[in-house]
Amino acid sequence: RMIKQVLIGFLCGAAILTVGILIGHYGITQSSSTMLKYPTCYLIKLFFILTFLHRELTKMPHMATTAGDEQTVQIMLKRWQDPKTGLDHAWREEYSVYLSFPDPKNPNKVTVGESAGFCVTFHRQSKKVYTSDQADPEVVQPYAAYSPAGHPKGKLVYANQGTPSDYQLLNNTVDLRGTIAITRYGGAGRGAKAINAAPYGVVGVLVYTDPLDINDGLMSDNETYPHSWYLPPSGVERGSFKSHYGDMLTPYLAAKEETYRIPVENITGIPPIPIQPIGFEDAYRLICDVKMDIYNYEEVKNSSNVMGVIRGSAEPDRYVIYGNHRDSWVHGAIDPSSGTSVMLELTRVLGTMVKQGQWRPRRSIIFGSWGAEEFGLIGSTEYTEQYFTKLSERTVAYINVDIAVFANATLRASAMPSVQNVIFTAAKQVNAPGLDSTSVYDNWIHYSNRSSTTHGTIPRVGYLSGAGSDYAAFVHYLGITSMDLAYTYDRSKTNARIYPVYHTAYDTFDYASKFIDPGFFSHQAVARTAGNVLIRLADSLVLPINCSDYAESLEDYLNTAVNLYQHQLKDWNISMEPLKRAVASFRSAATHLDQVILTIHSSCRPLKVRRINDQLMLLDRAFLNPLAFPDKRAYRNGWPTFPGLADAYANAESSGQASDWDKVHYHLSVLTQAIEGAAHTLTDVI
Amino acid sequence: RMIKQVLIGFLCGAAILTVGILIGHYGITQSSSTMLKYPTCYLIKLFFILTFLHRELTKMPHMATTAGDEQTVQIMLKRWQDPKTGLDHAWREEYSVYLSFPDPKNPNKVTVGESAGFCVTFHRQSKKVYTSDQADPEVVQPYAAYSPAGHPKGKLVYANQGTPSDYQLLNNTVDLRGTIAITRYGGAGRGAKAINAAPYGVVGVLVYTDPLDINDGLMSDNETYPHSWYLPPSGVERGSFKSHYGDMLTPYLAAKEETYRIPVENITGIPPIPIQPIGFEDAYRLICDVKMDIYNYEEVKNSSNVMGVIRGSAEPDRYVIYGNHRDSWVHGAIDPSSGTSVMLELTRVLGTMVKQGQWRPRRSIIFGSWGAEEFGLIGSTEYTEQYFTKLSERTVAYINVDIAVFANATLRASAMPSVQNVIFTAAKQVNAPGLDSTSVYDNWIHYSNRSSTTHGTIPRVGYLSGAGSDYAAFVHYLGITSMDLAYTYDRSKTNARIYPVYHTAYDTFDYASKFIDPGFFSHQAVARTAGNVLIRLADSLVLPINCSDYAESLEDYLNTAVNLYQHQLKDWNISMEPLKRAVASFRSAATHLDQVILTIHSSCRPLKVRRINDQLMLLDRAFLNPLAFPDKRAYRNGWPTFPGLADAYANAESSGQASDWDKVHYHLSVLTQAIEGAAHTLTDVI
Repeated sequence: RMIKQVLIGFLCGAAILTVGILIGHYGITQSSSTMLKYPTCYLIKLFFILTFLHRELTKMPHMATTAGDEQTVQIMLKRWQDPKTGLDHAWREEYSVYLSFPDPKNPNKVTVGESAGFCVTFHRQSKKVYTSDQADPEVVQPYAAYSPAGHPKGKLVYANQGTPSDYQLLNNTVDLRGTIAITRYGGAGRGAKAINAAPYGVVGVLVYTDPLDINDGLMSDNETYPHSWYLPPSGVERGSFKSHYGDMLTPYLAAKEETYRIPVENITGIPPIPIQPIGFEDAYRLICDVKMDIYNYEEVKNSSNVMGVIRGSAEPDRYVIYGNHRDSWVHGAIDPSSGTSVMLELTRVLGTMVKQGQWRPRRSIIFGSWGAEEFGLIGSTEYTEQYFTKLSERTVAYINVDIAVFANATLRASAMPSVQNVIFTAAKQVNAPGLDSTSVYDNWIHYSNRSSTTHGTIPRVGYLSGAGSDYAAFVHYLGITSMDLAYTYDRSKTNARIYPVYHTAYDTFDYASKFIDPGFFSHQAVARTAGNVLIRLADSLVLPINCSDYAESLEDYLNTAVNLYQHQLKDWNISMEPLKRAVASFRSAATHLDQVILTIHSSCRPLKVRRINDQLMLLDRAFLNPLAFPDKRAYRNGWPTFPGLADAYANAESSGQASDWDKVHYHLSVLTQAIEGAAHTLTDVI
Repeated sequence: RMIKQVLIGFLCGAAILTVGILIGHYGITQSSSTMLKYPTCYLIKLFFILTFLHRELTKMPHMATTAGDEQTVQIMLKRWQDPKTGLDHAWREEYSVYLSFPDPKNPNKVTVGESAGFCVTFHRQSKKVYTSDQADPEVVQPYAAYSPAGHPKGKLVYANQGTPSDYQLLNNTVDLRGTIAITRYGGAGRGAKAINAAPYGVVGVLVYTDPLDINDGLMSDNETYPHSWYLPPSGVERGSFKSHYGDMLTPYLAAKEETYRIPVENITGIPPIPIQPIGFEDAYRLICDVKMDIYNYEEVKNSSNVMGVIRGSAEPDRYVIYGNHRDSWVHGAIDPSSGTSVMLELTRVLGTMVKQGQWRPRRSIIFGSWGAEEFGLIGSTEYTEQYFTKLSERTVAYINVDIAVFANATLRASAMPSVQNVIFTAAKQVNAPGLDSTSVYDNWIHYSNRSSTTHGTIPRVGYLSGAGSDYAAFVHYLGITSMDLAYTYDRSKTNARIYPVYHTAYDTFDYASKFIDPGFFSHQAVARTAGNVLIRLADSLVLPINCSDYAESLEDYLNTAVNLYQHQLKDWNISMEPLKRAVASFRSAATHLDQVILTIHSSCRPLKVRRINDQLMLLDRAFLNPLAFPDKRAYRNGWPTFPGLADAYANAESSGQASDWDKVHYHLSVLTQAIEGAAHTLTDVI
């Protein structure tokens, strides 16, 4: 019988950690109370390497499928295959995916003219150079990926954020046919600004970054980067302008070379008219008539995920996945290299312990360095499509750390309610950057908190809504318990929609190390917090997934829904009682399972532990049943109330039609049975 | 550490069985070589009780939701809750389901007249009475469930089996508008005969049972029941005439009382015009003009499943489900009471051992007595909808024994290829009825065999195609490894489409005990075989699910597909190589897993065993991904070649259009990725 003791203190800052783990022949793990002090020498190493890694990753632009991207693939592979500090196994997974690029020979142009005859070319072919980074010939010119090529011209109209109501309102007073709309970022998805415009006869759309949204109003050259963290007047936010995530030619299938591809004309969710992003300097000089010359083209190119694994000792068939994308729009110092350097530092530390035979987690850990995220979460989505069954069956949780540090004020977490607690536990064991005696947790609760009926005041954990990063396919397609972690802003100090140079050529090592995280202390805090969560999920005997916290969230959503809807639903003879009963069943099943878990720690019955862990692991799958829940995945999409129900209610209220109230009733049944189904998985197994 | 020894010999006839099972504290099971002789006294008991149970179940008609149905619910509950011979727990699950009935006050009528003026009422209000059974006032009049009410009249035309091509052909020479079509059973689904007819303007459809299809041509009163097993001239086959299985008002949702129901006008897959089954005596007297008076009505009624469980000792969260429907059309002696009496006898024997503390299986066993199967597999489908997540995650296999005995010549099995082997093993341990020294297996191979590349000559196991019984939702909706077992005909002696009195008022205890299985010996053989399979699935340390047999089937399908399609696909530049590679990956993963399993028997690592068992249990789930495979579930539907591909190929070949060849390419990719995905679940877990 082998006994191993594992130090995981290295992830816990100066905090004292009380975890010791015995892994026996029968896969039994018991907790001991060995007190381990964090070795300070490690902290220094960690700091050194993080900065070094970040510098290495951001030396050149690494847009998906370019030479710079390949260079980062090689960096990852070299480190993960290192015999002393690497993982058990690392490899490349390649997909052939449909991307969109500007034409280097015919730069996109936006020109303006006084009513007739176009005269001045405003749009810059490259942004202003402040550091040598921006002069790199590999910097891609600003463009809207997946905008069609075209040469529209027309009168310029200001369409605010390009939402459906923005265009509707505008259309009341202006004939939009033949116009070019200028919109600011925010409010609607990037591609949606063009999709919403086309029905009104708009022929082209420009998108600019509004200084009020991103720069707290500052606009002048000497107030912005390199003098501050604010976006220079010539900076342009790039981005993917498609609505659906994953490769567009192979929906629900992995985009392998031989995979069938749908005809390009069958693609949905992309701009039907040309669209182009511009900087605010140019936006404010645009007047009257505008001509756009967009030369974008599409191409199927090979994009790689880099994968690495640490094999689990007792339960190799249970996976904790930790991932981040690797590709950037330009140098991507913050997006995504802040997250990539954190991941590489984590794998170096864990890999070293594995290679030295000091430690091996109970469950397997899979690291994913996703490709082509910027084009619409493509690498991670193709991965989930290729390994759909295996991942659905075996994945305990997915941890996403994309932009690790937006700013250095506080932790920010979005997650399923069931993993709120493990994030809290980890955050309590890590020092807040620059605050020796305050934990990440205590700092966090100060910036953002809420009142829980069970726990009192606790940090506010957000919803994993939409498809903002690579967690999307794990959450919406596979139904896997997920979280997204980062350090972020002090909202009392800035209203910036996101860090100002997001998706521009100014997102460089220089910028990151001067204005975002000097000293990389917040990077360290994220690495320690996320690493702590990762180890707890991979190595705890009983999974740190809490179904009672899930119940509390469902109760919150239920109360909101009852307050908002019950009165009017009664008028339509639709009862909310079945939903209330379902939530009550879930609560009572969760309470019971918690009781069972309390008794398990002292037992050493591996199959009983496994059974309970399977219940916890698969809890989120109960909210996925694509045939029963075709529109929305029950409540999952992350609204503060059940989204399928909320949508249906809003529709019915505005139309007033009986058939729409019928749909509300349908969504109530779907939701009720999803929650009942989840409760059935938590009650005694037979 | 508790050690239990279990006799399972009672299921194995006079054969000698070498199974002893140790269930240890760690859930470890090891085989010992205790030799147990089958106790002969048990055989007599078994026989006595089977006949008795059968008699009890068939005393009165028990159509779904009638008083007779409720009586069978009480019989099941009483036996399954018996403190000495019952199960651990038994209960009723009730659903409110949409059914269709004839109007007792306005019997359906078919009348004929000489061109003008209707004169003679031919259609019998009740069939001829040969035994008191047929005189029971609870015998439902013959009708087509889910036929609309209506009073069409028109010229009678003979439309063969009512297939699309039958009507198409007929339409070349006859103007079908305003006619009433007479069709014979077979060839097309019941409801399809009316669905296919309606587009041609046919106003009503009659269906009769052709003596050539069912009676080997015999027609006269003194050659048929009660003189033989053949259908009397006045016998009428009832049935459900809807196309989709499950409750029609609650697709993909359990039909609980409060569940939302779609508007009746949105129902699809039911006859758009009145349809009525008749006996052949009447069919042959129908000439010229016909008038139908159909008074069917629909009603939402409460239908019950009766559920019972034996809790597993080591892995209670793994389920083997054994089921059969309980409802009949009339007395249902063969359909379904032959299967129900087999199930009750099995539960009595197993329950007694459990209650006496002699035995408890490693995994949980769930018994399901489904309601309203005759109306379209409603009870079993609602059950899978209600417990979708739990059942998907935990069910090892589903065993269906509906009509246990069609005739007493040979075993018949339809199953996923992975459980062929456990059926063979069981069949080798049971004596064939009436043949002391021949096993069920040896008898079977004599009647129906095929040549396997791995095993040489073996019995032929059929495909679980379509939705012929309650396995449908388990196979097509949940993706659970399933089988359907029965004793059946000597095909050299009869061409009857099915046993002749199927779904008529002559399907009685008298009929069953005189003409189908005098002495109930075939019932016993089925009980022993199915029970043996059940115990092996529930109690073996390593699941008796064989992935190499799965590989062999895939190779067979692949070879067929390559022979049929490869040549022409090349012309369209579509390669079959990726499919070949996928099947090869599957084979190699299966071979490897078999090797791993060989090493496990001598080990006692519960989590390693569980890991492998999870791989085996979930193998069939890999072929289910409703978003990726929206039309057909990969190859599962059970054709001798991949059905999605075969359909697409047939379409493309007949249309010749490039877009249809595109769809062939799409289906190749779907199939390839389904098989690759399955292979990924069999390879080393990390």
